[in-house]
Amino acid sequence: MKLKSRVLQQGFLLALRFVSLVLWSFPGARALDNGLAMTPTMGWLHWERFMCNLDCQEEPDSCISEKLFMQMAELMESEGWKDVHSKGLKLGIYADVGNKTCAGFPGSFGHYDIDAKTFADWGVDLLKFDGCYCDSVEHLEKGYKRMSLALNRTGRSIVYSCEWPLYMWPFRKPNYTEIRQYCNHWRNFEDVYDSWQSVKSILAWTSSNQKRIVDVAGPGGWNDPDMLVIGNFGLSWDQQVTQMALWAIMAAPLLMSNDLRHISPQAKALLQDKDVIAINQDPLGKQGYRLRKEDNIEVWERPLSDLAWAVAMVNLQEIGGPRFHTISIASLGQGLACIPDCMITQLLPEKKKLGFYQWTSDLKTKINPTGTVLLRLAAT
Amino acid sequence: MKLKSRVLQQGFLLALRFVSLVLWSFPGARALDNGLAMTPTMGWLHWERFMCNLDCQEEPDSCISEKLFMQMAELMESEGWKDVHSKGLKLGIYADVGNKTCAGFPGSFGHYDIDAKTFADWGVDLLKFDGCYCDSVEHLEKGYKRMSLALNRTGRSIVYSCEWPLYMWPFRKPNYTEIRQYCNHWRNFEDVYDSWQSVKSILAWTSSNQKRIVDVAGPGGWNDPDMLVIGNFGLSWDQQVTQMALWAIMAAPLLMSNDLRHISPQAKALLQDKDVIAINQDPLGKQGYRLRKEDNIEVWERPLSDLAWAVAMVNLQEIGGPRFHTISIASLGQGLACIPDCMITQLLPEKKKLGFYQWTSDLKTKINPTGTVLLRLAAT
Repeated sequence: MKLKSRVLQQGFLLALRFVSLVLWSFPGARALDNGLAMTPTMGWLHWERFMCNLDCQEEPDSCISEKLFMQMAELMESEGWKDVHSKGLKLGIYADVGNKTCAGFPGSFGHYDIDAKTFADWGVDLLKFDGCYCDSVEHLEKGYKRMSLALNRTGRSIVYSCEWPLYMWPFRKPNYTEIRQYCNHWRNFEDVYDSWQSVKSILAWTSSNQKRIVDVAGPGGWNDPDMLVIGNFGLSWDQQVTQMALWAIMAAPLLMSNDLRHISPQAKALLQDKDVIAINQDPLGKQGYRLRKEDNIEVWERPLSDLAWAVAMVNLQEIGGPRFHTISIASLGQGLACIPDCMITQLLPEKKKLGFYQWTSDLKTKINPTGTVLLRLAAT
Repeated sequence: MKLKSRVLQQGFLLALRFVSLVLWSFPGARALDNGLAMTPTMGWLHWERFMCNLDCQEEPDSCISEKLFMQMAELMESEGWKDVHSKGLKLGIYADVGNKTCAGFPGSFGHYDIDAKTFADWGVDLLKFDGCYCDSVEHLEKGYKRMSLALNRTGRSIVYSCEWPLYMWPFRKPNYTEIRQYCNHWRNFEDVYDSWQSVKSILAWTSSNQKRIVDVAGPGGWNDPDMLVIGNFGLSWDQQVTQMALWAIMAAPLLMSNDLRHISPQAKALLQDKDVIAINQDPLGKQGYRLRKEDNIEVWERPLSDLAWAVAMVNLQEIGGPRFHTISIASLGQGLACIPDCMITQLLPEKKKLGFYQWTSDLKTKINPTGTVLLRLAAT
């Protein structure tokens, strides 16, 4: 199969990238030196919603085709998806470090240089590089590194999206410091599905491994908890709010996989929420973490630029009604979020200003089952 | 604690009962001879949504109180909930066959007669009788039988809702023929939660035990897969459609547990859907069953009066978009649903007439992930 036709069959990724021109110092490991992904990548990816459906005879509107991607691109342009601090639409492509892609199409093993050059010639701006069909862990590691160097040699700016640690975990603990030197983002855990079970499992994996993965994230390199499935079929409204809020806290790439031609106004507004996106894209670039879990309520927080903090409270109880949860302000932001006071705004499930809070005060919130309350605490 | 105060603390059940005046012959086992529940009970129950919240100081609007139940009763009256072939609002109460209720309040053990008489004096129309804190399986069985007889002796018509088989299963296989002689409906499996995982597990339990439980259901006695959680927080729209459709197929009591003061118009319309309720309440009273499962799509069917059939197709794949599924008409209704043809109406996810289909033809449907297409096939 020729590379050209492989592109059409394997599908593209439309990436809305925000290449920050402001340089920030950060204490993490050295990042891939391509100047890209200074904040998490944003865009649209076909996989979770459209998979590898090639039957354009029977299902012309949902098969993987140029038409599908062009329709999504046009909607990103016309429906406001591109308006959020974007530098315009970019093109992504999918390939694999091994002999075949996970779906069995030809992989890049042994052809990293020619594939990288071909992608650059085609004007590709992002490569999502999967890890199926690799003979050994050594091949996997070497392959991911070689493709990174090959992409750099093309001279074109191409965001490099890896699945290296995901495929490493069954064999040994990934060296994230090293991975960060080669990749702009990297998948750690299983593929996301259109279900609350899946979103929950990703959050659970992330919090149980946060000591290992949070500090390594920063401008130029990010942990990738996989796609946003907001606007599809399997998540309730509160569960969609939770995914959006927590992907912002986790400084995750915001790659939607949904059908922009058929999306509810509510899901669209959630995905286009400028305040939540601003948290995700905060230029300080520090990933958030789970602060505590008690009585089935999780509290997550993320440090932001200008001494601000984002705080998310998730109600994981799947019975009953909305629950009240009181947090002491002093327990947030390593005790530093509100000294001597701060201005608190609730961003999700709906935006409202909660006003000024002192360091010694408590904040009472009401959280729906499987839902999240997302707050922004601004220094005064 | 006196019985009177126990009532207020344990909560009520507001039951909309349809006592059919038409008598139908059915081949199942002999039913409890109280003339009640000739079709499945319908109503509202506080448990899943409001649980045992007794803190009326802090949460006056959601604690278990007379106010909560009166508000729900008034909304059932004013918001159309009572309009569906009801004989008016009835009152339900909760008690337990053992020494204590599951929440630790006094149980009825040793006091079945006085409790039954007290409930009758209070004008109670339904008793939900739980099975916690019973010393032995023998006590459990005897207790459920004795309370049934005690209720009958009161001379008042009281629907008897049991959890007998649920508490039997860990010890031995329940004798459903016997249970049906004492109870109007009976819980078999775990409590429902506000989650797709829970709804799925109930459907899976029901289909894997259908040989044992389907035939025993009929006018006067029903399998109870627990409450409808439609209108709450944990189910997506498609998952709510699935619960409504499958509870209709299963001839299940339709006991909502939600907040009628705060319910979306969409969830309300689904719960009040007259066509779907008509399937649930079909006077033939035969429970449906899973016909087959292939490629993550389940096909369920239920025989209805007038030689009609209800057919539900559930898409259990939690990834991708809507899937097309083609069924041969001849495979439905034991080959008898469409001889020589029939009129097919889709009831869910939205109503549309699909027209006439011949016995030899195929029907192509499109089913959302975790959603259901519910059809009614009418003889011509």
